[in-house]
Amino acid sequence: VIGWSARGGGLRRESRPSPRAGGGEALLRTRLSGICGTDLEILRGYLAFGGILGHEFVAEVVDCPERPELEGRRAVGEINAGCGTCSHCRGGDPRHCPGRSVLGILGRDGCHAESFLLPAVNLIPLPDGLDDESAVFAEPVAAALEVLEQLPGLAGEEVLVLGDGRLGRVLARVLRQAGVAVSLLGREREGDPRPAGAGVELLTDPEATRERFRVAVEATGRPEGFVAALDALRPRGTLVLKSTYEGGAPLPMARVVVDEIRVLGSRCGRMEPAVEALAEGRIAVRDLIDAVHPLEEAPAAFERAARPGTFKVLLRP
Amino acid sequence: VIGWSARGGGLRRESRPSPRAGGGEALLRTRLSGICGTDLEILRGYLAFGGILGHEFVAEVVDCPERPELEGRRAVGEINAGCGTCSHCRGGDPRHCPGRSVLGILGRDGCHAESFLLPAVNLIPLPDGLDDESAVFAEPVAAALEVLEQLPGLAGEEVLVLGDGRLGRVLARVLRQAGVAVSLLGREREGDPRPAGAGVELLTDPEATRERFRVAVEATGRPEGFVAALDALRPRGTLVLKSTYEGGAPLPMARVVVDEIRVLGSRCGRMEPAVEALAEGRIAVRDLIDAVHPLEEAPAAFERAARPGTFKVLLRP
Repeated sequence: VIGWSARGGGLRRESRPSPRAGGGEALLRTRLSGICGTDLEILRGYLAFGGILGHEFVAEVVDCPERPELEGRRAVGEINAGCGTCSHCRGGDPRHCPGRSVLGILGRDGCHAESFLLPAVNLIPLPDGLDDESAVFAEPVAAALEVLEQLPGLAGEEVLVLGDGRLGRVLARVLRQAGVAVSLLGREREGDPRPAGAGVELLTDPEATRERFRVAVEATGRPEGFVAALDALRPRGTLVLKSTYEGGAPLPMARVVVDEIRVLGSRCGRMEPAVEALAEGRIAVRDLIDAVHPLEEAPAAFERAARPGTFKVLLRP
Repeated sequence: VIGWSARGGGLRRESRPSPRAGGGEALLRTRLSGICGTDLEILRGYLAFGGILGHEFVAEVVDCPERPELEGRRAVGEINAGCGTCSHCRGGDPRHCPGRSVLGILGRDGCHAESFLLPAVNLIPLPDGLDDESAVFAEPVAAALEVLEQLPGLAGEEVLVLGDGRLGRVLARVLRQAGVAVSLLGREREGDPRPAGAGVELLTDPEATRERFRVAVEATGRPEGFVAALDALRPRGTLVLKSTYEGGAPLPMARVVVDEIRVLGSRCGRMEPAVEALAEGRIAVRDLIDAVHPLEEAPAAFERAARPGTFKVLLRP
């Protein structure tokens, strides 16, 4: 099977023997995969991951001995594969298992490929009414929903989302549908008619955010976003950190102490509620797709995804 | 009056007209002042503060038109002087007032001087049974108690305090008396018989802390302490940040995101409970005093306070 890795530096075409189901692993045939900011960071050297890239997908279950009822069905999946025996895994949450592998990120080939493996327990079958182009957003939507799980009671609160890229837009829409009063701090985008999302206030001047918010969600992917979030927060505010900066970044942590800011690291969320929210149409995402490229044209797709102002680029085998 | 500032770089002797009470300000005659890590950081350029240094004190109230009953009494004081009209001040907490001045730190001369001013509302009179040498620790004890206010329900929990200097030792003792199972990560101190504190486990090997704790309190004053705290925490753990690093520090914030760590900035605490805890003998601190220098010998005192292994150096006018 054909897939794309970051082995040795740039994007690299790999040709491998087809993986085989068994030992808890299901064989999946990729229908659609999404290029994420993390993929681009790995290409820049983050995490030194040399396997096949990709962790956002919709796939057909081809071979699944443990859950044969899924065979032939479309599915998305939890991307963290736990050891199954530690306290996190026993508690039903492999996302923090210390021995975990992560699809296309850590110790496990990803989904920018014709087919790939994932533990059968990780699969979530899709309802028939949910189209591939929406379902492929399940992972970022789950990551956005995680903020609501970490901060219950956000409804009615004014929240600033920093960064109007891929993740920032999804975050703004997910928070908005939960009743949060969302402002999105982004750039002027001339000629781009795509709205921030129904009911989301789009701000382009950081000065307009100064000390206005009790909660800010940092999704710019740049250390400058951390500083802008501190500027926007009131003392004792909460900074939800979604961006993983490549390497160490110099940050004004003294301000975190002096203003007694709470910084909450926030990563993956649970997939089931994300699939539900997409299936029920509570979160619309299809307008965020800029392009769908054939898997064979991954270099052009990655180049497009890395261009400023691009939201989501998909690959189809 | 004589006092010591960091104006122009190093420690500098200042001679000023005596300040006068009025407009809400009380005149205080210093009995004892403590040299804090923040004083040393200001000397290194942090905050660019050019006034008289010092914010830990025991003083005699000399002139206090607003609270004449305090005149002649010994007092300590809340070091943040608020505007009195913002929402923080109206809520009884000037510590986060955006227009605040802070004794010896921000826009207000401090207590490493023969006398100084502080708003009358900030003063807390001392009970007769509490000696000066204990009471001068009220500010760092309050800063340590703030952790318990931010994280109620810590009793019974295992907590790692990083840094066995001035603040780390006080933190360990304050948390211990609240029923927390405290481990203190510090250096080997040959020939220093002072214990970490009754019931506090003293660790010197960071390896022994790895992923062992749900809560870690960073009080080393060095960015390396932040990394060591991350190493010691389990996923979804809480890192209480007490250290204010000079300037920006490169920190591995990606780990905060991936492990969904909560970072809690923690600064000043309320003084009243600190005075109470010291007066009731719940927290013993006098053994942390390394030296008491005359105010005139401040340079020698600061030099001593900056020496590794020193806990607390006091100045007496």
